Amino acid sequence: MSTQTQRIKSALLKEISELQIDGSQKLPSERHLSERFGTTRVTLREALRLLEADGIIYRENRRGWFITPPRLHYDPSVHARISFMNYAQQQGFIPKSTLYQFKHIVADEFLAAVMNTVVGKPLYHICRIRYLDERPVLFENMMIRADLLKGLDNVDMTGSLHQKLRDDYGLIISRADFEMTVTTLPKEEATALNALEGAAALKFHRRYFNEDGTIFEFDIEFWRHDAITVAYEYNNNQPVRPF
Amino acid sequence: MSTQTQRIKSALLKEISELQIDGSQKLPSERHLSERFGTTRVTLREALRLLEADGIIYRENRRGWFITPPRLHYDPSVHARISFMNYAQQQGFIPKSTLYQFKHIVADEFLAAVMNTVVGKPLYHICRIRYLDERPVLFENMMIRADLLKGLDNVDMTGSLHQKLRDDYGLIISRADFEMTVTTLPKEEATALNALEGAAALKFHRRYFNEDGTIFEFDIEFWRHDAITVAYEYNNNQPVRPF
Repeated sequence: MSTQTQRIKSALLKEISELQIDGSQKLPSERHLSERFGTTRVTLREALRLLEADGIIYRENRRGWFITPPRLHYDPSVHARISFMNYAQQQGFIPKSTLYQFKHIVADEFLAAVMNTVVGKPLYHICRIRYLDERPVLFENMMIRADLLKGLDNVDMTGSLHQKLRDDYGLIISRADFEMTVTTLPKEEATALNALEGAAALKFHRRYFNEDGTIFEFDIEFWRHDAITVAYEYNNNQPVRPF
Repeated sequence: MSTQTQRIKSALLKEISELQIDGSQKLPSERHLSERFGTTRVTLREALRLLEADGIIYRENRRGWFITPPRLHYDPSVHARISFMNYAQQQGFIPKSTLYQFKHIVADEFLAAVMNTVVGKPLYHICRIRYLDERPVLFENMMIRADLLKGLDNVDMTGSLHQKLRDDYGLIISRADFEMTVTTLPKEEATALNALEGAAALKFHRRYFNEDGTIFEFDIEFWRHDAITVAYEYNNNQPVRPF
Protein backbone atom coordinates (compact mmCIF):
# COMPACT_ATOMS: atom_id res chain seq x y z
CA MET A 1 0.00 0.00 0.00
CA SER A 2 1.50 3.36 -1.05
CA THR A 3 1.92 6.11 1.56
CA GLN A 4 -0.41 8.16 -0.65
CA THR A 5 -3.15 5.54 -0.30
CA GLN A 6 -2.43 5.38 3.43
CA ARG A 7 -2.82 9.16 3.64
CA ILE A 8 -6.16 9.05 1.82
CA LYS A 9 -7.33 6.16 4.01
CA SER A 10 -6.63 8.21 7.15
CA ALA A 11 -8.38 11.24 5.67
CA LEU A 12 -11.39 9.08 4.83
CA LEU A 13 -11.47 7.67 8.37
CA LYS A 14 -11.59 11.25 9.69
CA GLU A 15 -14.36 12.07 7.20
CA ILE A 16 -16.30 8.99 8.31
CA SER A 17 -16.08 9.81 12.03
CA GLU A 18 -17.35 13.34 11.25
CA LEU A 19 -20.23 11.95 9.16
CA GLN A 20 -21.12 9.61 12.01
CA ILE A 21 -21.31 12.55 14.39
CA ASP A 22 -23.77 14.17 11.95
CA GLY A 23 -25.68 10.86 11.90
CA SER A 24 -25.19 10.55 8.15
CA GLN A 25 -24.53 7.12 6.63
CA LYS A 26 -23.66 7.92 3.02
CA LEU A 27 -20.22 9.01 1.82
CA PRO A 28 -19.89 11.86 -0.68
CA SER A 29 -19.39 10.77 -4.30
CA GLU A 30 -15.99 9.38 -5.38
CA ARG A 31 -15.59 12.37 -7.66
CA HIS A 32 -16.25 14.79 -4.79
CA LEU A 33 -13.86 12.89 -2.48
CA SER A 34 -11.00 12.62 -4.99
CA GLU A 35 -11.27 16.40 -5.60
CA ARG A 36 -11.43 17.15 -1.88
CA PHE A 37 -8.32 15.03 -1.14
CA GLY A 38 -6.56 16.09 -4.32
CA THR A 39 -6.00 12.54 -5.50
CA THR A 40 -6.80 10.33 -8.48
CA ARG A 41 -9.91 8.14 -8.61
CA VAL A 42 -7.56 5.13 -8.73
CA THR A 43 -5.86 6.01 -5.44
CA LEU A 44 -9.17 6.98 -3.85
CA ARG A 45 -10.75 3.65 -4.86
CA GLU A 46 -7.73 1.80 -3.46
CA ALA A 47 -8.25 3.54 -0.11
CA LEU A 48 -12.02 2.90 -0.24
CA ARG A 49 -11.43 -0.80 -0.90
CA LEU A 50 -9.10 -0.99 2.10
CA LEU A 51 -11.86 0.44 4.31
CA GLU A 52 -14.36 -1.95 2.69
CA ALA A 53 -12.05 -4.89 3.47
CA ASP A 54 -11.98 -3.79 7.11
CA GLY A 55 -15.77 -3.62 7.06
CA ILE A 56 -15.81 0.11 7.82
CA ILE A 57 -17.72 1.03 4.64
CA TYR A 58 -19.65 -0.96 2.07
CA ARG A 59 -20.79 -0.41 -1.50
CA GLU A 60 -24.33 -0.50 -2.83
CA ASN A 61 -24.75 -0.90 -6.55
CA ARG A 62 -25.24 2.52 -8.16
CA ARG A 63 -26.04 4.06 -4.76
CA GLY A 64 -22.43 4.66 -3.70
CA TRP A 65 -20.51 4.09 -0.47
CA PHE A 66 -22.11 3.80 2.96
CA ILE A 67 -20.79 3.62 6.51
CA THR A 68 -21.22 0.10 7.87
CA PRO A 69 -23.76 -0.06 10.70
CA PRO A 70 -22.61 -1.35 14.11
CA ARG A 71 -21.70 -5.05 14.08
CA LEU A 72 -23.53 -7.80 15.86
CA HIS A 73 -21.33 -9.34 18.55
CA TYR A 74 -21.50 -13.11 18.42
CA ASP A 75 -20.09 -15.07 21.34
CA PRO A 76 -20.27 -18.80 20.54
CA SER A 77 -20.26 -19.64 24.26
CA VAL A 78 -23.46 -17.64 24.69
CA HIS A 79 -25.25 -17.24 21.37
CA ALA A 80 -25.20 -20.85 20.25
CA ARG A 81 -27.87 -21.23 22.93
CA ILE A 82 -29.91 -18.08 22.42
CA SER A 83 -32.11 -17.32 19.43
CA PHE A 84 -30.88 -14.76 16.89
CA MET A 85 -34.08 -12.79 17.52
CA ASN A 86 -33.23 -12.51 21.23
CA TYR A 87 -29.54 -11.65 21.13
CA ALA A 88 -29.98 -9.24 18.24
CA GLN A 89 -32.66 -7.40 20.26
CA GLN A 90 -30.46 -7.46 23.38
CA GLN A 91 -27.84 -5.60 21.33
CA GLY A 92 -30.30 -2.94 20.21
CA PHE A 93 -31.01 -4.21 16.70
CA ILE A 94 -34.42 -4.78 15.16
CA PRO A 95 -34.11 -8.39 13.96
CA LYS A 96 -36.24 -10.03 11.29
CA SER A 97 -36.29 -13.52 9.80
CA THR A 98 -37.83 -14.57 6.52
CA LEU A 99 -38.28 -18.09 5.20
CA TYR A 100 -36.34 -18.33 1.94
CA GLN A 101 -36.87 -22.00 1.15
CA PHE A 102 -38.28 -25.13 2.75
CA LYS A 103 -37.30 -28.41 1.13
CA HIS A 104 -37.46 -32.11 1.89
CA ILE A 105 -34.07 -33.64 1.05
CA VAL A 106 -32.11 -36.76 1.91
CA ALA A 107 -28.61 -36.84 3.41
CA ASP A 108 -25.82 -37.05 0.82
CA GLU A 109 -22.37 -38.39 1.73
CA PHE A 110 -21.27 -35.05 3.21
CA LEU A 111 -24.39 -34.51 5.34
CA ALA A 112 -24.45 -38.14 6.46
CA ALA A 113 -20.84 -37.84 7.66
CA VAL A 114 -21.31 -34.49 9.40
CA MET A 115 -24.61 -35.49 11.01
CA ASN A 116 -23.34 -38.94 11.89
CA THR A 117 -26.19 -40.68 10.09
CA VAL A 118 -26.68 -42.72 6.91
CA VAL A 119 -26.88 -41.56 3.30
CA GLY A 120 -30.52 -41.20 2.29
CA LYS A 121 -31.74 -40.14 5.76
CA PRO A 122 -34.73 -37.78 5.28
CA LEU A 123 -33.95 -34.19 6.23
CA TYR A 124 -35.66 -30.83 6.18
CA HIS A 125 -33.53 -28.22 4.45
CA ILE A 126 -34.83 -24.95 5.89
CA CYS A 127 -33.26 -21.80 4.54
CA ARG A 128 -33.87 -18.42 6.17
CA ILE A 129 -32.58 -14.89 5.73
CA ARG A 130 -31.90 -12.92 8.89
CA TYR A 131 -32.04 -9.13 8.98
CA LEU A 132 -30.71 -6.48 11.35
CA ASP A 133 -32.60 -3.19 11.03
CA GLU A 134 -33.91 -4.35 7.62
CA ARG A 135 -30.38 -5.15 6.39
CA PRO A 136 -29.90 -8.79 5.32
CA VAL A 137 -26.81 -10.09 7.15
CA LEU A 138 -27.19 -13.86 7.47
CA PHE A 139 -28.08 -16.61 5.00
CA GLU A 140 -28.97 -19.62 7.11
CA ASN A 141 -29.27 -23.26 6.04
CA MET A 142 -30.69 -25.65 8.62
CA MET A 143 -30.60 -29.37 7.96
CA ILE A 144 -32.90 -31.11 10.46
CA ARG A 145 -33.64 -34.83 10.93
CA ALA A 146 -37.18 -35.22 9.58
CA ASP A 147 -37.60 -38.64 11.21
CA LEU A 148 -36.99 -37.15 14.67
CA LEU A 149 -39.06 -33.98 14.25
CA LYS A 150 -42.16 -34.67 12.18
CA GLY A 151 -44.47 -31.99 10.87
CA LEU A 152 -42.09 -29.04 10.78
CA ASP A 153 -43.70 -28.18 7.44
CA ASN A 154 -46.45 -26.46 9.39
CA VAL A 155 -44.27 -24.48 11.80
CA ASP A 156 -43.87 -20.71 11.47
CA MET A 157 -40.21 -20.17 10.66
CA THR A 158 -40.05 -16.41 11.26
CA GLY A 159 -39.52 -16.76 15.01
CA SER A 160 -37.26 -18.89 17.19
CA LEU A 161 -37.30 -22.47 15.90
CA HIS A 162 -35.53 -23.88 18.97
CA GLN A 163 -38.14 -22.36 21.26
CA LYS A 164 -40.84 -24.14 19.24
CA LEU A 165 -38.87 -27.40 19.31
CA ARG A 166 -38.62 -27.05 23.08
CA ASP A 167 -42.26 -26.07 23.62
CA ASP A 168 -43.99 -28.25 21.02
CA TYR A 169 -41.62 -31.22 20.77
CA GLY A 170 -40.10 -31.24 24.27
CA LEU A 171 -36.67 -31.21 22.66
CA ILE A 172 -33.73 -30.68 25.02
CA ILE A 173 -30.36 -29.66 23.56
CA SER A 174 -27.54 -31.35 25.44
CA ARG A 175 -24.61 -30.13 23.39
CA ALA A 176 -23.60 -27.98 20.44
CA ASP A 177 -20.42 -27.57 18.49
CA PHE A 178 -19.42 -24.73 16.26
CA GLU A 179 -16.81 -24.16 13.56
CA MET A 180 -16.08 -20.94 11.76
CA THR A 181 -14.05 -20.38 8.61
CA VAL A 182 -13.56 -17.62 6.06
CA THR A 183 -15.06 -18.17 2.63
CA THR A 184 -16.61 -16.18 -0.21
CA LEU A 185 -20.29 -15.74 -1.01
CA PRO A 186 -21.76 -17.97 -3.73
CA LYS A 187 -24.04 -16.21 -6.21
CA GLU A 188 -27.38 -17.10 -4.62
CA GLU A 189 -26.26 -16.22 -1.07
CA ALA A 190 -24.63 -13.00 -2.29
CA THR A 191 -27.80 -11.88 -4.08
CA ALA A 192 -29.89 -12.60 -0.98
CA LEU A 193 -27.48 -10.52 1.16
CA ASN A 194 -27.19 -7.58 -1.27
CA ALA A 195 -23.50 -8.41 -1.64
CA LEU A 196 -21.26 -9.19 -4.60
CA GLU A 197 -20.65 -12.82 -5.58
CA GLY A 198 -17.20 -13.76 -4.27
CA ALA A 199 -17.25 -11.21 -1.43
CA ALA A 200 -15.52 -12.40 1.75
CA ALA A 201 -17.89 -13.97 4.26
CA LEU A 202 -17.85 -15.91 7.49
CA LYS A 203 -19.15 -19.45 7.26
CA PHE A 204 -20.46 -21.08 10.43
CA HIS A 205 -21.04 -24.80 10.83
CA ARG A 206 -23.08 -25.65 13.91
CA ARG A 207 -24.35 -29.00 15.14
CA TYR A 208 -26.93 -29.53 17.85
CA PHE A 209 -27.19 -32.73 19.87
CA ASN A 210 -30.36 -33.88 21.64
CA GLU A 211 -30.56 -35.63 25.01
CA ASP A 212 -29.60 -38.96 23.43
CA GLY A 213 -26.50 -37.35 21.92
CA THR A 214 -28.03 -37.59 18.43
CA ILE A 215 -27.27 -34.77 16.02
CA PHE A 216 -30.75 -33.56 15.08
CA GLU A 217 -29.64 -30.34 13.38
CA PHE A 218 -26.71 -29.13 11.29
CA ASP A 219 -26.53 -25.48 10.23
CA ILE A 220 -24.50 -23.86 7.48
CA GLU A 221 -24.58 -20.08 7.84
CA PHE A 222 -23.15 -17.38 5.60
CA TRP A 223 -22.64 -14.04 7.34
CA ARG A 224 -21.84 -10.73 5.68
CA HIS A 225 -18.28 -10.27 6.93
CA ASP A 226 -18.94 -6.63 7.85
CA ALA A 227 -22.02 -7.43 9.94
CA ILE A 228 -20.44 -9.50 12.68
CA THR A 229 -17.64 -9.58 15.22
CA VAL A 230 -16.98 -12.90 16.90
CA ALA A 231 -16.19 -12.19 20.53
CA TYR A 232 -15.26 -14.23 23.53
CA GLU A 233 -14.42 -13.20 27.07
CA TYR A 234 -12.71 -15.38 29.59
CA ASN A 235 -12.57 -14.65 33.27
CA ASN A 236 -12.22 -16.89 36.28
CA ASN A 237 -15.77 -16.14 37.46
CA GLN A 238 -17.36 -16.94 34.14
CA PRO A 239 -20.50 -19.00 34.72
CA VAL A 240 -21.24 -21.94 32.45
CA ARG A 241 -24.60 -20.94 31.05
CA PRO A 242 -27.15 -23.72 30.54
CA PHE A 243 -29.08 -24.04 27.29
CA MET B 1 -21.73 -19.83 -10.47
CA SER B 2 -22.46 -21.75 -13.67
CA THR B 3 -23.41 -25.44 -13.46
CA GLN B 4 -20.31 -26.05 -15.61
CA THR B 5 -18.09 -24.47 -12.96
CA GLN B 6 -19.95 -26.43 -10.28
CA ARG B 7 -19.29 -29.64 -12.21
CA ILE B 8 -15.57 -28.87 -12.50
CA LYS B 9 -15.42 -27.95 -8.81
CA SER B 10 -16.88 -31.35 -7.86
CA ALA B 11 -14.48 -33.12 -10.22
CA LEU B 12 -11.57 -31.22 -8.65
CA LEU B 13 -12.73 -32.15 -5.14
CA LYS B 14 -12.69 -35.82 -6.20
CA GLU B 15 -9.22 -35.33 -7.72
CA ILE B 16 -8.01 -33.73 -4.49
CA SER B 17 -9.31 -36.52 -2.25
CA GLU B 18 -7.53 -39.06 -4.50
CA LEU B 19 -4.30 -37.04 -4.38
CA GLN B 20 -4.58 -36.91 -0.59
CA ILE B 21 -4.85 -40.68 -0.46
CA ASP B 22 -1.62 -40.85 -2.49
CA GLY B 23 -0.10 -38.36 -0.01
CA SER B 24 0.58 -35.88 -2.79
CA GLN B 25 0.09 -32.17 -2.13
CA LYS B 26 0.50 -30.60 -5.57
CA LEU B 27 -2.28 -30.41 -8.16
CA PRO B 28 -1.54 -31.22 -11.80
CA SER B 29 -0.99 -28.18 -14.05
CA GLU B 30 -4.00 -26.06 -15.07
CA ARG B 31 -3.38 -27.11 -18.68
CA HIS B 32 -3.45 -30.78 -17.71
CA LEU B 33 -6.59 -30.33 -15.62
CA SER B 34 -8.54 -28.35 -18.22
CA GLU B 35 -7.75 -31.05 -20.79
CA ARG B 36 -8.70 -33.84 -18.40
CA PHE B 37 -12.05 -32.22 -17.54
CA GLY B 38 -12.62 -31.03 -21.11
CA THR B 39 -13.11 -27.42 -20.09
CA THR B 40 -11.63 -24.00 -20.80
CA ARG B 41 -8.86 -22.51 -18.66
CA VAL B 42 -11.31 -19.74 -17.71
CA THR B 43 -13.87 -22.16 -16.28
CA LEU B 44 -11.15 -24.24 -14.63
CA ARG B 45 -9.65 -21.16 -12.97
CA GLU B 46 -13.13 -20.13 -11.74
CA ALA B 47 -13.50 -23.53 -10.09
CA LEU B 48 -9.95 -23.37 -8.66
CA ARG B 49 -10.66 -19.94 -7.17
CA LEU B 50 -13.82 -21.27 -5.52
CA LEU B 51 -11.76 -24.01 -3.86
CA GLU B 52 -9.12 -21.44 -2.92
CA ALA B 53 -11.84 -19.26 -1.32
CA ASP B 54 -12.93 -22.26 0.74
CA GLY B 55 -9.30 -22.78 1.77
CA ILE B 56 -9.15 -26.22 0.19
CA ILE B 57 -6.27 -25.33 -2.15
CA TYR B 58 -3.83 -22.43 -2.33
CA ARG B 59 -1.59 -20.93 -4.98
CA GLU B 60 2.16 -20.49 -4.84
CA ASN B 61 3.69 -18.05 -7.28
CA ARG B 62 5.00 -19.92 -10.33
CA ARG B 63 4.82 -23.23 -8.43
CA GLY B 64 1.15 -23.94 -9.10
CA TRP B 65 -1.74 -25.12 -6.93
CA PHE B 66 -1.35 -27.07 -3.69
CA ILE B 67 -3.70 -28.84 -1.32
CA THR B 68 -4.07 -26.83 1.89
CA PRO B 69 -2.54 -28.61 4.89
CA PRO B 70 -4.81 -29.46 7.85
CA ARG B 71 -6.04 -26.37 9.70
CA LEU B 72 -5.17 -25.40 13.21
CA HIS B 73 -8.25 -25.53 15.43
CA TYR B 74 -8.45 -22.45 17.61
CA ASP B 75 -10.91 -22.44 20.50
CA PRO B 76 -10.87 -19.01 22.16
CA SER B 77 -12.13 -20.52 25.41
CA VAL B 78 -9.03 -22.72 25.56
CA HIS B 79 -6.27 -21.28 23.41
CA ALA B 80 -6.34 -17.73 24.70
CA ARG B 81 -4.70 -19.29 27.76
CA ILE B 82 -2.27 -21.72 26.15
CA SER B 83 0.79 -20.78 24.17
CA PHE B 84 0.72 -21.21 20.40
CA MET B 85 3.75 -23.50 20.70
CA ASN B 86 1.81 -25.82 23.02
CA TYR B 87 -1.54 -26.05 21.29
CA ALA B 88 0.03 -26.34 17.86
CA GLN B 89 2.11 -29.28 19.11
CA GLN B 90 -0.95 -30.85 20.78
CA GLN B 91 -2.58 -30.84 17.33
CA GLY B 92 0.37 -32.57 15.71
CA PHE B 93 2.01 -29.56 14.07
CA ILE B 94 5.66 -28.56 14.33
CA PRO B 95 5.36 -24.93 15.47
CA LYS B 96 8.03 -22.28 15.12
CA SER B 97 8.18 -18.61 16.08
CA THR B 98 10.54 -15.99 14.76
CA LEU B 99 11.01 -12.44 15.99
CA TYR B 100 10.16 -10.11 13.10
CA GLN B 101 10.52 -6.77 14.85
CA PHE B 102 11.00 -5.36 18.33
CA LYS B 103 10.24 -1.67 18.75
CA HIS B 104 9.78 0.82 21.55
CA ILE B 105 6.68 2.91 20.77
CA VAL B 106 4.22 5.10 22.64
CA ALA B 107 0.44 4.66 22.70
CA ASP B 108 -1.39 6.64 20.02
CA GLU B 109 -5.09 7.54 20.41
CA PHE B 110 -6.23 4.13 19.18
CA LEU B 111 -3.91 2.10 21.42
CA ALA B 112 -4.59 4.32 24.43
CA ALA B 113 -8.34 3.77 24.01
CA VAL B 114 -8.09 0.00 23.46
CA MET B 115 -5.57 -0.49 26.29
CA ASN B 116 -7.43 1.89 28.59
CA THR B 117 -4.35 4.04 29.18
CA VAL B 118 -3.10 7.48 28.17
CA VAL B 119 -1.66 8.69 24.88
CA GLY B 120 2.14 8.60 25.05
CA LYS B 121 2.32 5.58 27.38
CA PRO B 122 5.53 3.64 26.57
CA LEU B 123 4.88 0.29 24.92
CA TYR B 124 6.87 -2.53 23.42
CA HIS B 125 5.69 -3.40 19.92
CA ILE B 126 6.80 -6.99 19.47
CA CYS B 127 6.09 -8.57 16.12
CA ARG B 128 6.50 -12.28 15.52
CA ILE B 129 5.80 -14.71 12.70
CA ARG B 130 4.36 -18.08 13.68
CA TYR B 131 4.88 -21.18 11.54
CA LEU B 132 3.15 -24.56 11.33
CA ASP B 133 5.39 -27.22 9.74
CA GLU B 134 7.57 -24.41 8.29
CA ARG B 135 4.53 -22.67 6.75
CA PRO B 136 4.05 -19.08 7.96
CA VAL B 137 0.42 -18.78 9.11
CA LEU B 138 0.27 -15.98 11.69
CA PHE B 139 1.60 -12.43 11.76
CA GLU B 140 1.44 -11.36 15.40
CA ASN B 141 1.69 -7.85 16.85
CA MET B 142 1.95 -7.61 20.62
CA MET B 143 1.68 -4.23 22.31
CA ILE B 144 2.89 -4.54 25.91
CA ARG B 145 3.04 -1.94 28.69
CA ALA B 146 6.77 -1.19 29.02
CA ASP B 147 6.28 0.52 32.40
CA LEU B 148 4.77 -2.64 33.90
CA LEU B 149 7.20 -5.15 32.36
CA LYS B 150 10.68 -3.71 32.20
CA GLY B 151 13.57 -5.33 30.38
CA LEU B 152 11.68 -7.39 27.80
CA ASP B 153 14.34 -6.26 25.33
CA ASN B 154 16.51 -9.07 26.63
CA VAL B 155 13.90 -11.85 26.56
CA ASP B 156 14.06 -14.62 23.96
CA MET B 157 10.90 -14.19 21.88
CA THR B 158 10.97 -17.54 20.06
CA GLY B 159 9.25 -19.42 22.89
CA SER B 160 6.19 -18.76 25.06
CA LEU B 161 6.26 -15.14 26.24
CA HIS B 162 3.48 -15.65 28.79
CA GLN B 163 5.39 -18.48 30.43
CA LYS B 164 8.37 -16.14 30.80
CA LEU B 165 6.14 -13.38 32.19
CA ARG B 166 4.76 -15.85 34.71
CA ASP B 167 8.14 -17.33 35.68
CA ASP B 168 10.35 -14.23 35.57
CA TYR B 169 7.87 -11.46 36.39
CA GLY B 170 5.33 -13.36 38.53
CA LEU B 171 2.61 -12.08 36.21
CA ILE B 172 -0.85 -13.56 36.74
CA ILE B 173 -3.45 -13.16 34.00
CA SER B 174 -6.90 -12.62 35.51
CA ARG B 175 -8.91 -12.08 32.34
CA ALA B 176 -8.69 -11.96 28.56
CA ASP B 177 -11.03 -10.79 25.86
CA PHE B 178 -10.95 -11.65 22.21
CA GLU B 179 -12.51 -10.25 19.04
CA MET B 180 -12.31 -11.68 15.57
CA THR B 181 -13.17 -10.06 12.26
CA VAL B 182 -12.54 -10.72 8.58
CA THR B 183 -10.11 -8.40 6.83
CA THR B 184 -7.55 -8.51 4.03
CA LEU B 185 -3.78 -8.76 4.33
CA PRO B 186 -1.78 -5.53 4.09
CA LYS B 187 1.34 -5.72 1.91
CA GLU B 188 3.90 -6.30 4.68
CA GLU B 189 1.83 -8.98 6.44
CA ALA B 190 1.01 -10.67 3.11
CA THR B 191 4.68 -10.85 2.13
CA ALA B 192 5.59 -12.32 5.51
CA LEU B 193 2.87 -14.99 5.11
CA ASN B 194 3.67 -15.89 1.48
CA ALA B 195 0.22 -14.62 0.55
CA LEU B 196 -1.03 -12.01 -1.89
CA GLU B 197 -1.70 -8.46 -0.68
CA GLY B 198 -5.46 -8.12 -0.24
CA ALA B 199 -6.03 -11.83 0.39
CA ALA B 200 -8.77 -12.57 2.91
CA ALA B 201 -7.50 -13.03 6.44
CA LEU B 202 -8.76 -13.38 9.98
CA LYS B 203 -7.85 -10.55 12.31
CA PHE B 204 -7.77 -11.25 16.04
CA HIS B 205 -7.75 -8.57 18.73
CA ARG B 206 -6.88 -9.92 22.15
CA ARG B 207 -6.43 -8.11 25.45
CA TYR B 208 -4.89 -9.53 28.60
CA PHE B 209 -5.62 -8.20 32.07
CA ASN B 210 -3.33 -8.66 35.07
CA GLU B 211 -4.38 -9.28 38.67
CA ASP B 212 -5.15 -5.57 39.17
CA GLY B 213 -7.42 -5.63 36.12
CA THR B 214 -4.91 -3.56 34.14
CA ILE B 215 -4.57 -4.30 30.44
CA PHE B 216 -0.86 -5.08 30.13
CA GLU B 217 -1.02 -6.54 26.59
CA PHE B 218 -3.00 -5.97 23.41
CA ASP B 219 -2.46 -8.26 20.41
CA ILE B 220 -3.33 -7.71 16.77
CA GLU B 221 -2.98 -10.95 14.82
CA PHE B 222 -3.34 -11.65 11.11
CA TRP B 223 -4.00 -15.30 10.27
CA ARG B 224 -3.88 -16.88 6.82
CA HIS B 225 -7.58 -17.62 6.36
CA ASP B 226 -6.86 -21.14 5.12
CA ALA B 227 -4.68 -22.06 8.11
CA ILE B 228 -7.27 -21.85 10.87
CA THR B 229 -10.72 -22.99 11.93
CA VAL B 230 -12.22 -21.23 14.93
CA ALA B 231 -14.01 -23.86 16.95
CA TYR B 232 -16.07 -23.90 20.10
CA GLU B 233 -17.85 -26.73 21.85
CA TYR B 234 -20.47 -26.27 24.49
CA ASN B 235 -21.67 -29.01 26.76
CA ASN B 236 -23.15 -28.92 30.22
CA ASN B 237 -20.09 -30.57 31.79
CA GLN B 238 -17.65 -28.10 30.31
CA PRO B 239 -15.09 -27.14 32.94
CA VAL B 240 -14.00 -23.54 33.26
CA ARG B 241 -10.27 -23.86 32.74
CA PRO B 242 -8.02 -21.59 34.81
CA PHE B 243 -5.23 -19.61 33.20
